[in-house]
Amino acid sequence: MKKIINDPNQVVLDMVKGIAAAYPDSLKHLPDTMVLARKQPAGTEKVGLVSGGGSGHEPAHAGYIGEGMLDAAVSGEVFTSPTPDQVFEAIKAVDNGAGVFLVVKNYTGDVLNFEMAAELAEAEGIKVDHVVVNDDVAVEDSSFTSGRRGIAGTVFVHKIAGAKAEAGGSLEEVKSVAEKTVANVRSMGMALSSGTVPAAGKPGFQLADDEMEIGIGIHGEPGIERKAIASADEIAEELTNQVLADIDFAAGEEVAVMINGLGATPEMELYILNGKVQELLAEKNIRVYKTFVGEYMTSLEMAGCSVTLLKLDGELKELLDAPSQAPAFKM
Amino acid sequence: MKKIINDPNQVVLDMVKGIAAAYPDSLKHLPDTMVLARKQPAGTEKVGLVSGGGSGHEPAHAGYIGEGMLDAAVSGEVFTSPTPDQVFEAIKAVDNGAGVFLVVKNYTGDVLNFEMAAELAEAEGIKVDHVVVNDDVAVEDSSFTSGRRGIAGTVFVHKIAGAKAEAGGSLEEVKSVAEKTVANVRSMGMALSSGTVPAAGKPGFQLADDEMEIGIGIHGEPGIERKAIASADEIAEELTNQVLADIDFAAGEEVAVMINGLGATPEMELYILNGKVQELLAEKNIRVYKTFVGEYMTSLEMAGCSVTLLKLDGELKELLDAPSQAPAFKM
Repeated sequence: MKKIINDPNQVVLDMVKGIAAAYPDSLKHLPDTMVLARKQPAGTEKVGLVSGGGSGHEPAHAGYIGEGMLDAAVSGEVFTSPTPDQVFEAIKAVDNGAGVFLVVKNYTGDVLNFEMAAELAEAEGIKVDHVVVNDDVAVEDSSFTSGRRGIAGTVFVHKIAGAKAEAGGSLEEVKSVAEKTVANVRSMGMALSSGTVPAAGKPGFQLADDEMEIGIGIHGEPGIERKAIASADEIAEELTNQVLADIDFAAGEEVAVMINGLGATPEMELYILNGKVQELLAEKNIRVYKTFVGEYMTSLEMAGCSVTLLKLDGELKELLDAPSQAPAFKM
Repeated sequence: MKKIINDPNQVVLDMVKGIAAAYPDSLKHLPDTMVLARKQPAGTEKVGLVSGGGSGHEPAHAGYIGEGMLDAAVSGEVFTSPTPDQVFEAIKAVDNGAGVFLVVKNYTGDVLNFEMAAELAEAEGIKVDHVVVNDDVAVEDSSFTSGRRGIAGTVFVHKIAGAKAEAGGSLEEVKSVAEKTVANVRSMGMALSSGTVPAAGKPGFQLADDEMEIGIGIHGEPGIERKAIASADEIAEELTNQVLADIDFAAGEEVAVMINGLGATPEMELYILNGKVQELLAEKNIRVYKTFVGEYMTSLEMAGCSVTLLKLDGELKELLDAPSQAPAFKM
């Protein structure tokens, strides 16, 4: 294992400190936690938006903290759900009377722990609600999941719920747009190679030199099929068609596209893939409103990518376009 | 070689098309070229800002096209200078009477070809000037370079010269802030593994499983030393100290910091490195004005990083903070 780290068992704390050190004007690290929270102007009353999950998916989620997106992010150990007490700390830190909304990726541990944290907070009189993101169309159940997994589409939920909260939306209104986003977003990924969890010291899985895996999860959970590596055009077709097969589009409807790198894929390759994805959507008369290409939801140094489509309406477009100061999603 | 590509000899054109397809509202691909240019409002009169170089360093340079930064970027073949005729096309595309300024990284081929393009343009009556960026403190001469190499610090030159041009600065004024930035910026990098040029099909160099190279270039050019992999803290110290040794700082002076990933390094590791870099600067009473962590100047899927410091004054701070709509450097 070759990594730029100190102690393999200390990577999350070192990372959280390093993030806080990068943005001292806008972020604070809550003492004795793995929680990063936005420095709010005193007296700000808005719904607090909290997300988090296992580490190793950076910039998810701490990179999405900022005006117009998240108020706090909780970092679990690598590929491990954060504990309820950590999530509870985040909730308390961002609550200022308007309630707190949690964006949870659909992994059994995350759902359980965020729900337990919500109960702890409600017991202290804090209004809490949540949404579970399950955008991955690849497989129904998986290693860590009952039901579909939450992957890169989660970032659109952060953006849209964040914009609604920033605009003064109530807890119910934030939940409503978050649920609409979850209903409208679909993703699918593929990998060429695995990442390495620092404490494990070796790659999570092995693919042969001529092999790829379609439908893989962001922790390396099994996908649909391992097969010979295909061209970028073929990969684009396979991912895009699977996503489109899962959601109804009327001709002329608009989407946001996210071409997400999983960690070690050169941006060159993401753009090559994007060229074909855009062509396929044009052929199907699906209009692209906005495209995002980059690393938004990674899996350590996994080589691979995912394609996400978010079906838009007027409300979602407006919220997607709203300003954001989050370092990993400035708009 | 495992890559998400179609034809290994066609990657640059496929990428350029994929970039244009991602940002159709703000970018255009000049027909029959490898040039991407900003769609300007008709009648805009400002100094045109052009950069470019070999491909494989994405988001450099096309990701920096946008209001407040570059007006055009020229993509050479992977790790290969763009030809003079391509640079000339870019110059013509962005000239509107105020002159064109070129930001060139210090590689022998780039310098020659951008200078030849400038001569072609001047012969047609276009005012052209340029700056050569040589921020890499690692080695004096190198495989492709006479003098120091231009690496991640180039992105700060794009930002600052771009802001000056956007604000209506003259060609002389844009050159003056670009030169000040070059005089004030220093970088140094290290790698854990090599990237693979698609047309070559195999990694550019080999490092043993317990080895790293300090001072390596963004094309894998030899650095200062190969040695056993060190901790993130030790790497941070080595890179930061070499950068600091090369430029005078008075106590209390301010810098911008860029912690740049070379392609395959998880963002987690960049933030871990950042934690120590910030600590070292604080110990030396160097005040950090702003920090940028991410992939700004890559080397395909090389694992590794670089540390860049830019010494700031009031003018540079203002230009660094100016708005930018470039996809890879939104502010």
